[in-house]
Amino acid sequence: MASYLASNQERFLTELIDWLCIPSVSADPKFQADVRKAADYLADRLREVGLENVELCETAGNPIVYADKIIDPSLPTVLVYGHYDVQPADPYELWDSPPFEPVIKDGNIYARGACDDKGQVYMHVKAFEVMMQEDGGVPCNVKVMFEGEEEIGSNNLGIFVKANKEKLAADVILISDTGILANDTPSIEVGLRGLSYHEVEVTGPNRDLHSGLYGGAVPNPINVLCKMIASLHDENNHITIPAFYNNVAELSAEERAEMAKAPHSDEEFKKSIGLSNIYGEKGYSTMERTSIRPTLDVNGIWGGYTGEGAKTVIASKAYAKISMRLVPHQTSDEITALFQQHFESIAPSGVQVKVTPHHGGEPVVTPTDSVAYRAAADAMETTFGKRPIPTRGGGSIPIVAMFKTELGLDTVLLGFGLDSDAIHSPNEHYGVFNFLKGIETIPHFYRNYAAAMQK
Amino acid sequence: MASYLASNQERFLTELIDWLCIPSVSADPKFQADVRKAADYLADRLREVGLENVELCETAGNPIVYADKIIDPSLPTVLVYGHYDVQPADPYELWDSPPFEPVIKDGNIYARGACDDKGQVYMHVKAFEVMMQEDGGVPCNVKVMFEGEEEIGSNNLGIFVKANKEKLAADVILISDTGILANDTPSIEVGLRGLSYHEVEVTGPNRDLHSGLYGGAVPNPINVLCKMIASLHDENNHITIPAFYNNVAELSAEERAEMAKAPHSDEEFKKSIGLSNIYGEKGYSTMERTSIRPTLDVNGIWGGYTGEGAKTVIASKAYAKISMRLVPHQTSDEITALFQQHFESIAPSGVQVKVTPHHGGEPVVTPTDSVAYRAAADAMETTFGKRPIPTRGGGSIPIVAMFKTELGLDTVLLGFGLDSDAIHSPNEHYGVFNFLKGIETIPHFYRNYAAAMQK
Repeated sequence: MASYLASNQERFLTELIDWLCIPSVSADPKFQADVRKAADYLADRLREVGLENVELCETAGNPIVYADKIIDPSLPTVLVYGHYDVQPADPYELWDSPPFEPVIKDGNIYARGACDDKGQVYMHVKAFEVMMQEDGGVPCNVKVMFEGEEEIGSNNLGIFVKANKEKLAADVILISDTGILANDTPSIEVGLRGLSYHEVEVTGPNRDLHSGLYGGAVPNPINVLCKMIASLHDENNHITIPAFYNNVAELSAEERAEMAKAPHSDEEFKKSIGLSNIYGEKGYSTMERTSIRPTLDVNGIWGGYTGEGAKTVIASKAYAKISMRLVPHQTSDEITALFQQHFESIAPSGVQVKVTPHHGGEPVVTPTDSVAYRAAADAMETTFGKRPIPTRGGGSIPIVAMFKTELGLDTVLLGFGLDSDAIHSPNEHYGVFNFLKGIETIPHFYRNYAAAMQK
Repeated sequence: MASYLASNQERFLTELIDWLCIPSVSADPKFQADVRKAADYLADRLREVGLENVELCETAGNPIVYADKIIDPSLPTVLVYGHYDVQPADPYELWDSPPFEPVIKDGNIYARGACDDKGQVYMHVKAFEVMMQEDGGVPCNVKVMFEGEEEIGSNNLGIFVKANKEKLAADVILISDTGILANDTPSIEVGLRGLSYHEVEVTGPNRDLHSGLYGGAVPNPINVLCKMIASLHDENNHITIPAFYNNVAELSAEERAEMAKAPHSDEEFKKSIGLSNIYGEKGYSTMERTSIRPTLDVNGIWGGYTGEGAKTVIASKAYAKISMRLVPHQTSDEITALFQQHFESIAPSGVQVKVTPHHGGEPVVTPTDSVAYRAAADAMETTFGKRPIPTRGGGSIPIVAMFKTELGLDTVLLGFGLDSDAIHSPNEHYGVFNFLKGIETIPHFYRNYAAAMQK
């Protein structure tokens, strides 16, 4: 007889696709009504599968969807976190199909949010349905909290968590917003990088000028900005901000050797993103550069004439968005202050520089010797047939550090995405295999965890 | 009794304003119909003032408006050139009044094209009217040729001129597309810089990437582009492109001393554009930097996420528009090739660079000992009460060099704009004083020139 999951998988996919049609872009105010619509949709589905106390908790921004199922106060409680907001979808013209008209093609669901994080959140909703139907209920208490501002810094989540410690009391936090190494190589992320994100503005003359009449005699803010950005890395791709590396935790030779065992090929890595050559900080491998080392990247730049044809203008202003990924034991506040101070200090006289920090997040390392981690690893071993490898990821989930500080809880990062899912990019997608594997794996986690905690 | 000009100046202004309402932006295809409308308007006004053989000469792009008045084949002929197309008006939000809804405020006409070049072209149209009414006609033969593609490189004008040498035969060319030092300091430009304008594209990975998952391990095309641009100037603001200065004509100490006599204050210059400090190529004054020295400026840059909020992306591509102003005896072809070769050569391995030259123009120096130059200088002395100073301008009118090559004709640059007119910028304007002074001065030029040539 087919499992409940096998019998219902088409419907599960259809429900996810309906949800992905709602453009819940949190960064752009014009999608505000859609963000709320996506929250309502999620709340309705949580009610349908049998969760209780479902509510939209209002914040100064987008609502937090809360629900729970308390079966016995003496049993342990799992708090599930995720987010229903998505990244902006531009540039739209690079999508093969419209970002908010999901299609399934070659085994993947293509849509903005398919993986990050609506697809992964929806695995949890359906895992509850599976447990309710197959086991007659969940084996421990569960609480869920899905926010709508993860892609813009989770500011209101922090306020909500601080104000609702009782309501959110639990034993562990479970999040699916990360990935595995490959569909035949399960893994669990045990480290995440922090973030410091800034917008910078360089002002030269007080109005746009004709480059023929003024060129050569005034500081051109675009040239100045390029020079300032170029100076942030030295010839070895080390970051030049003074004191930037002071608190970076250096790994031992043993730890680096252990990391090097994870399957990785620079040739395949290059091929997967169409690069003939890669480089980064001197003295570190690709895996290390994207996990244990801090980085600085320009995420956007603009200024002057960017339309068709030629305009001979010297712009008054030039802008960039610049972010740094942080590692233990750097802190977001420390690096934000260092960046701001340094960037202002390198401005040549005659131009004005404004640095506006957007949001930050703390780097984090989660334990691999906890009951919850073992429950997750065992669950994956059951469904994948292979023990998952613990890995350190390059991305940031700033709220993991915040949960530790505010709620005293460790997190298990039970994610099912792939690096090739193109999250934050055109043609974001999520494997149907991965979506269904998540729904299959999560109930095993609950069963393992509840059983181990009762011993 | 009031002069004809004084009695009709209100109507002259109204006609100009009607013309400025037509957004004849040549760089943007969506204004194509408006460009033609502006050409039709100009042709109608030329017919009204009594010019003959008025026609729109079709090209592969926008039409050239031609007209003439041949009074006697044995008399000399003046060929007037100008352009009825305008620069794009963006950023629109920085205009105090809409760019295509002209207003007169504090003695200035505010509109895109008010000065560059519709306002200056219209002085010629009305100068013909003044001569017809006051003198009963023009004192020599005249031909006019107004193009609609000056702001995008005048490619079709070159083709038209080559194909119509007979039709355009003349003794001198007269252009009003430059400026004077101040309303109480008339001047005539006798030198112009050339131009080499490029769009560059830097491609890193073949799709946008998540900066957390990939940051630190791949070449970020925005960071790379910044580094490449930063390297184009050294610490003395010399341009680093090999062989760039090889053909630059160095001025003698005497010539530089002569230039330094023109009224200029760095303090006033800084104040006029809101800069606390200025700098440029070491060893040269502000006046020299904007006239006798070549320059390199970024006119526009873009890439990655430029919307509201934060997006943690590594872009696949980054772009810039980069132009160089050239001086005698650099040539546009030479510098275009040097730039392209150098910019491609400094790309780090792993990224691809594409350089697309937009258009170029040759630097030029016009004679100050010609009959036509003296006729223009005498005309200005009559109407301003002061002898004009010969100056070398920083802008480019590439067609001046082309007219010399193709038609064998020198040009007189009888312009009436001011540096503060904000051409190519928001709030472009043209002084009512300057517009009327132009209409007053131009007939004197014809009278002086015709008289001197008949001696």
